[in-house]
Amino acid sequence: MKNKILLCIADGVGDRPCESLGFKTPLQYAKTPHLDKLAKDGQSGIMDLHKAGTPVGTDLGHLILFGYSIKDYPGRGPLEAFGENVELVTGDVAFRCNFATIDENGNVKDRRAGRIREGTTELANALNGMQIDDVTVIFKEATEHRAVLVLRGKGLSDAITDTDPKIEGVPVKKPKATNDCDEAIKTAKVLAEVQKKAIEILSAHPLNKERESQGLLPANCILTRGAGSMPDIKKITERLKFKACCIAAESTVIGVARLAGFSTVYDPAFTGNIDTNIDKKSDAAVKALKENDFVVLHFKATDLMGHDNNPEGKVKAVEKFDALVGLALEKIEKEDLGNVIVALAADHSTPCERREHSGDPVPVVISGKNIRNDDVEKFDEVSSAKGALCRMQGSDFCNTLYDYLEVTKKEGN
Amino acid sequence: MKNKILLCIADGVGDRPCESLGFKTPLQYAKTPHLDKLAKDGQSGIMDLHKAGTPVGTDLGHLILFGYSIKDYPGRGPLEAFGENVELVTGDVAFRCNFATIDENGNVKDRRAGRIREGTTELANALNGMQIDDVTVIFKEATEHRAVLVLRGKGLSDAITDTDPKIEGVPVKKPKATNDCDEAIKTAKVLAEVQKKAIEILSAHPLNKERESQGLLPANCILTRGAGSMPDIKKITERLKFKACCIAAESTVIGVARLAGFSTVYDPAFTGNIDTNIDKKSDAAVKALKENDFVVLHFKATDLMGHDNNPEGKVKAVEKFDALVGLALEKIEKEDLGNVIVALAADHSTPCERREHSGDPVPVVISGKNIRNDDVEKFDEVSSAKGALCRMQGSDFCNTLYDYLEVTKKEGN
Repeated sequence: MKNKILLCIADGVGDRPCESLGFKTPLQYAKTPHLDKLAKDGQSGIMDLHKAGTPVGTDLGHLILFGYSIKDYPGRGPLEAFGENVELVTGDVAFRCNFATIDENGNVKDRRAGRIREGTTELANALNGMQIDDVTVIFKEATEHRAVLVLRGKGLSDAITDTDPKIEGVPVKKPKATNDCDEAIKTAKVLAEVQKKAIEILSAHPLNKERESQGLLPANCILTRGAGSMPDIKKITERLKFKACCIAAESTVIGVARLAGFSTVYDPAFTGNIDTNIDKKSDAAVKALKENDFVVLHFKATDLMGHDNNPEGKVKAVEKFDALVGLALEKIEKEDLGNVIVALAADHSTPCERREHSGDPVPVVISGKNIRNDDVEKFDEVSSAKGALCRMQGSDFCNTLYDYLEVTKKEGN
Repeated sequence: MKNKILLCIADGVGDRPCESLGFKTPLQYAKTPHLDKLAKDGQSGIMDLHKAGTPVGTDLGHLILFGYSIKDYPGRGPLEAFGENVELVTGDVAFRCNFATIDENGNVKDRRAGRIREGTTELANALNGMQIDDVTVIFKEATEHRAVLVLRGKGLSDAITDTDPKIEGVPVKKPKATNDCDEAIKTAKVLAEVQKKAIEILSAHPLNKERESQGLLPANCILTRGAGSMPDIKKITERLKFKACCIAAESTVIGVARLAGFSTVYDPAFTGNIDTNIDKKSDAAVKALKENDFVVLHFKATDLMGHDNNPEGKVKAVEKFDALVGLALEKIEKEDLGNVIVALAADHSTPCERREHSGDPVPVVISGKNIRNDDVEKFDEVSSAKGALCRMQGSDFCNTLYDYLEVTKKEGN
């Protein structure tokens, strides 16, 4: 493979004109010499991740950027599981969980078990491996009070309601099948049994006894939500035969990357915010390029500023992303990595004025000395639309990158 | 029908920046006054034949340009059959064949029967019309040692392995069904019987006896590959009711054109390379425009130069294509043909640096006095992307041309 690709993703970077920026978008307003250089040396375009006018989540946006389609979307549970390094197989049903505290009447006293941080590994281990009929339970702690539950066995379904009541002072909800199929009914029954046994096991656990003796809330119950079934999809890296790595702070992106078969690099210095350590992050990208064909460098703060309706903050975040890309380019230059094609993209727009994801297209660039060179000289929502890539769908953009790796299949003869 | 269309196809013309051309593409580097004039007088765009980033073969690329989709792709066997003027009907299973030589132990001595050139018509006739149960055998010689085998009958399948062992000194492979369906099992059995009978008939053929007496290798066996089943598709010329003609040297393009219901014009002076006779070819195009609504003028050398990684050669090929188009335009001008819309396209990109087809889009132009006129003034991968056609799929481009012929169906009322 003679080309390597570095794909730099600025989460939610697409925006709309902001009054406080003189009706420019943050990308138009910010000083972005490195992003603009890439645009100048390559081809630009705008991209609809799924479909023009359809906002997508960070999870689906990245799923598409990595080579999947909306049909492959497994729901939050499985993505969370991959984020926690639980490898799912087709048919597994996964749930996002909280450790919680119930009182003697079975009412939820604290949905986060006093925001428990210590000992969740032992508690999770006590639940992991439980067997309910022919279904095996995989249970793994995540950050703080969060955890992942996976049911593995034949004939399961994700058509299951959440058991998390979302409020406190009420009982845990009973899991219900949302359709009449045998699979959903079986899964609801198994999940109810898992939750019952979990209360028994957790209530008796020495760690919880100790918490109570210290006046802390015991993590004596689990609440579930976001049931999702692992679809019959292959890792894209196995299907197309290439090596990929994702450098990111956010567990959602990490989960999607693992589902796609990418290795992941995480360091506590990657904060997922504007204070993320771009020196370490760019180092990680260059190191990953030595060992992989395709490296994703993810940057989160742009999205956060959009959700906060903070145009000035988004300008700063864009400039930090520009600095991150600039550092990576500088370090790549010093290494003998062969031909590295650098691409810029986003997973969706998060316009400040909307404080949420929107269906506005995002700007994209593909840049390198063997890439067609158009006359766009700036990376922003409007300039990029004049480029040689024109307007494309997310799957086309991803497929195009993989074609530069020469791993897509030729059709016909 | 008030418009006629001349579609000029430069095979594999799309490329990427070439270092030896100062990082221009061959199309950007070459002097192409006639192609540029068409761009100036019409609307430009870029086209993904099937999907952005997915390379297509010459056969599928032309199938799409003529109005079909990837679902209609019948495989190599049927296209080869059409190339040899064997008209297939739905359900036929066709194979590419070699006449070959086997020794007394049944091992392949020469996969090409000493590159036999003479007498293959008689040998093919001896096999043609063979009946195995309810299956009729159609057998036709092609160039040199090549031939086409068609099995016609009910309940046949193309899920059949190649019998060509690809190497010499080993036995002919037995045809095997690649699935458990009755159709595939039946077809494998019939093919085995055809091959057995072919050995009997060919071994006893006077022409082979004579070859042996002259010390030449006898063509005493057939090897098959590329099984393909004729899909249930109608000739596009019949479906949309127009008359079309294709002027080409390459048998693949000729085969696809015949499948689509186009008449074809071939002359030994059309070489399929840079020395093709553009005077004769442009004459043929103008003559065909008198008798047809839609004429395809195909030029091959651009693709060959890409496969050879010869940027300078590709520049020359592009300039020859420009001269061919120029001659055609000049001759059309002198005739009273009504309004002739001239379109430029390619079946795929063949970047020199890749030496293979790629998924990069190709430039297209549609030009004529009744065609929207944008401000693009040059025909190349980057300039064309700024045109009024924007970025389109192959099926959209083809459908657009057929709409100018006023043969596409209005939907709704």
